[in-house]
Amino acid sequence: MATEPSKFNSKGTARLEAFSDGVFSIAITLLVFNLHAPDLQAGQSLFQALLDQWASYFAFLISFATIGIMWINHHNLFKLINRSDHTLMILNGLLLLLITFLNYPMAVLGEYIQDPDEGRVAAGLFSMTSVLIAIAYNALWRYAAYKRRLIDPAVPQELVDEITAAYRYGPLLYLVALIMAFFSVAASLAVSAGLAIFFALPSKFNSYGDD
Amino acid sequence: MATEPSKFNSKGTARLEAFSDGVFSIAITLLVFNLHAPDLQAGQSLFQALLDQWASYFAFLISFATIGIMWINHHNLFKLINRSDHTLMILNGLLLLLITFLNYPMAVLGEYIQDPDEGRVAAGLFSMTSVLIAIAYNALWRYAAYKRRLIDPAVPQELVDEITAAYRYGPLLYLVALIMAFFSVAASLAVSAGLAIFFALPSKFNSYGDD
Amino acid sequence: MATEPSKFNSKGTARLEAFSDGVFSIAITLLVFNLHAPDLQAGQSLFQALLDQWASYFAFLISFATIGIMWINHHNLFKLINRSDHTLMILNGLLLLLITFLNYPMAVLGEYIQDPDEGRVAAGLFSMTSVLIAIAYNALWRYAAYKRRLIDPAVPQELVDEITAAYRYGPLLYLVALIMAFFSVAASLAVSAGLAIFFALPSKFNSYGDD
Amino acid sequence: MATEPSKFNSKGTARLEAFSDGVFSIAITLLVFNLHAPDLQAGQSLFQALLDQWASYFAFLISFATIGIMWINHHNLFKLINRSDHTLMILNGLLLLLITFLNYPMAVLGEYIQDPDEGRVAAGLFSMTSVLIAIAYNALWRYAAYKRRLIDPAVPQELVDEITAAYRYGPLLYLVALIMAFFSVAASLAVSAGLAIFFALPSKFNSYGDD
Repeated sequence: MATEPSKFNSKGTARLEAFSDGVFSIAITLLVFNLHAPDLQAGQSLFQALLDQWASYFAFLISFATIGIMWINHHNLFKLINRSDHTLMILNGLLLLLITFLNYPMAVLGEYIQDPDEGRVAAGLFSMTSVLIAIAYNALWRYAAYKRRLIDPAVPQELVDEITAAYRYGPLLYLVALIMAFFSVAASLAVSAGLAIFFALPSKFNSYGDD
Repeated sequence: MATEPSKFNSKGTARLEAFSDGVFSIAITLLVFNLHAPDLQAGQSLFQALLDQWASYFAFLISFATIGIMWINHHNLFKLINRSDHTLMILNGLLLLLITFLNYPMAVLGEYIQDPDEGRVAAGLFSMTSVLIAIAYNALWRYAAYKRRLIDPAVPQELVDEITAAYRYGPLLYLVALIMAFFSVAASLAVSAGLAIFFALPSKFNSYGDD
Repeated sequence: MATEPSKFNSKGTARLEAFSDGVFSIAITLLVFNLHAPDLQAGQSLFQALLDQWASYFAFLISFATIGIMWINHHNLFKLINRSDHTLMILNGLLLLLITFLNYPMAVLGEYIQDPDEGRVAAGLFSMTSVLIAIAYNALWRYAAYKRRLIDPAVPQELVDEITAAYRYGPLLYLVALIMAFFSVAASLAVSAGLAIFFALPSKFNSYGDD
Repeated sequence: MATEPSKFNSKGTARLEAFSDGVFSIAITLLVFNLHAPDLQAGQSLFQALLDQWASYFAFLISFATIGIMWINHHNLFKLINRSDHTLMILNGLLLLLITFLNYPMAVLGEYIQDPDEGRVAAGLFSMTSVLIAIAYNALWRYAAYKRRLIDPAVPQELVDEITAAYRYGPLLYLVALIMAFFSVAASLAVSAGLAIFFALPSKFNSYGDD
């Protein structure tokens, strides 16, 4: 009777990554269900009705890019973190809680994005959640990186320190989007979209090891 | 022509874990869809309407924590269980049945949490399901642990015995939440939330092998 | 620069299984969303309203058991099939098409199960889909088993032949449920539930290799 | 304390494939939820009402086949691509964005397929998205194949060149479906269905290595 290699002392992150991949892929796939086939008003063509939904398409794009970038970020961190413990699982769970929650501000935003007053509240809720996500990434990384607690021995300390230093700015950058929300929906979302694009650009933090 | 290693005699739990991870990650991600963008009443601000949904946020938090803790628990058990057989698959299926079902009491709770009378029925349905889940965990574990039927040889018998002894209290603890539901929604949910926090704390049952 | 082992000539079924696990786990998890928190009629208690939904709970249980058994069946077949080719992927896709489609008869059944006339049409649609799924399993297995095309060399030919012989009865058994649907909803569903329980029992086809 | 093999310098595509499999399997499973149990009109039988939904079944079939073929295609490409970098992750994200978006044209199509005028707009949106997906596949493949940047050394250059040459026609073929949409819903969908069947047939591009 064949048996498997022992998992008992395994501190591996495989199943943590599989569970997280599941949550990320479901959260990102369900975004499209915030788009609804339009009901035509009298005299309105479908073509016109589809164009009138531009704000929803825009919210879908920002949302997809935001969760996509967060997945890439998670993927990159777990190339450096090679062990898991109970606290890491709790911190990862907190991160996933906030990422799935992101669907709610997105739904609120989709509803109120074209309302100049309430739209700012919706954009504020969205960027407030982004601030909390950035803080959760900091907590996860700092816990893992503290005295290289859960870090792969092959990772140079210099890279660990650079990531710690760079992550410090994440909550502050999304705080800018939150502050902008007091003044203008468009300005706040522009900052969020800009941050998504900025984090999508190749950098030494997401491209270590690339040729 | 390259072939894979034989799976024929493999008693491994890899695909059982993958399927379970899928079910857990979907069940936990879909919780957020119980939150709906509010329709504003005349004269109501979006900010106020969002605050008025506090009970839904609270139900979302308890639900997410409950399913999250159950996933960690499943993950920990399957670090000790290293073989699978048909009966284990059926028992695991029963457990997943109850865990996906949990979405239904949560939806009922979200609807009736602020109703003092019917809220107790909703809280009762929720904690009744928790009792059944605790029983299913006991059944799964006892089947696997009986004469170390499916237990990794590397696992000390002492740990097996301690887990068996500790699991005995699970259904009783959730039974307290069920009994509280006859008296008060808040008391019953407080017990459920307290149990989620209690099980999330590091203990020798979820941290074996951690440094 | 580290590279992975070559997948180019790999005929492995790992990604086919991962994709199928995803589809099965989503299909089975979403079943619970056919249960809706009841709206209370005047003078009706929540407790009574929950009891009145018994037919929906019953449909949920049969559906969950049916898809769960199919997953175990898929899992067992792919312990014997250790290579994949384009035709197998198409046949597996056909099977997954029918399995995800099963959600539709289930929704129809949930709506009409208590209507003596239309309920028989709903039960007929459900068992018709089950017949097609049994045929798709036969097609998949026969394609893989023909001259041991994709079968693991470690699998004895006797087991292959026994499975081929046993599978022949699958479509016929579900055809009985289909025929019963012309006479009575309850009789047809009883046959379907009986088949789910029958296939869940340990047998030499789902327990090969178990101690 | 056991540790895992280092992932730090791993350029592997395992987690990229797992995440993509998650997105594909969710997108394909959720298609069935565009089918709704019919509400019966006065004097209408359930049997008749089910038959009247033929257009929805047809849209479901085309959609399932389209996403299924795309998954097989993705699977085949990643048997040749054996390394990943940041740009590949962004291009793969773009592809997944369009594939999840496909649910939206499908919902619009399901709503307007029987309307001769607006149906053409819906078919146009559907085939426009297909054109963009074909372009995204080209971008992903050409990035990976350029100077064999991310290609498995075991893959013959001849196969790489043949795929590059064949992929060039993808956007053009779906452009035909888009142009047909200006004239007739049926003609446009027939082209899309024909392309799904054509790509499902065994060819040297999806069957390399099959016996």
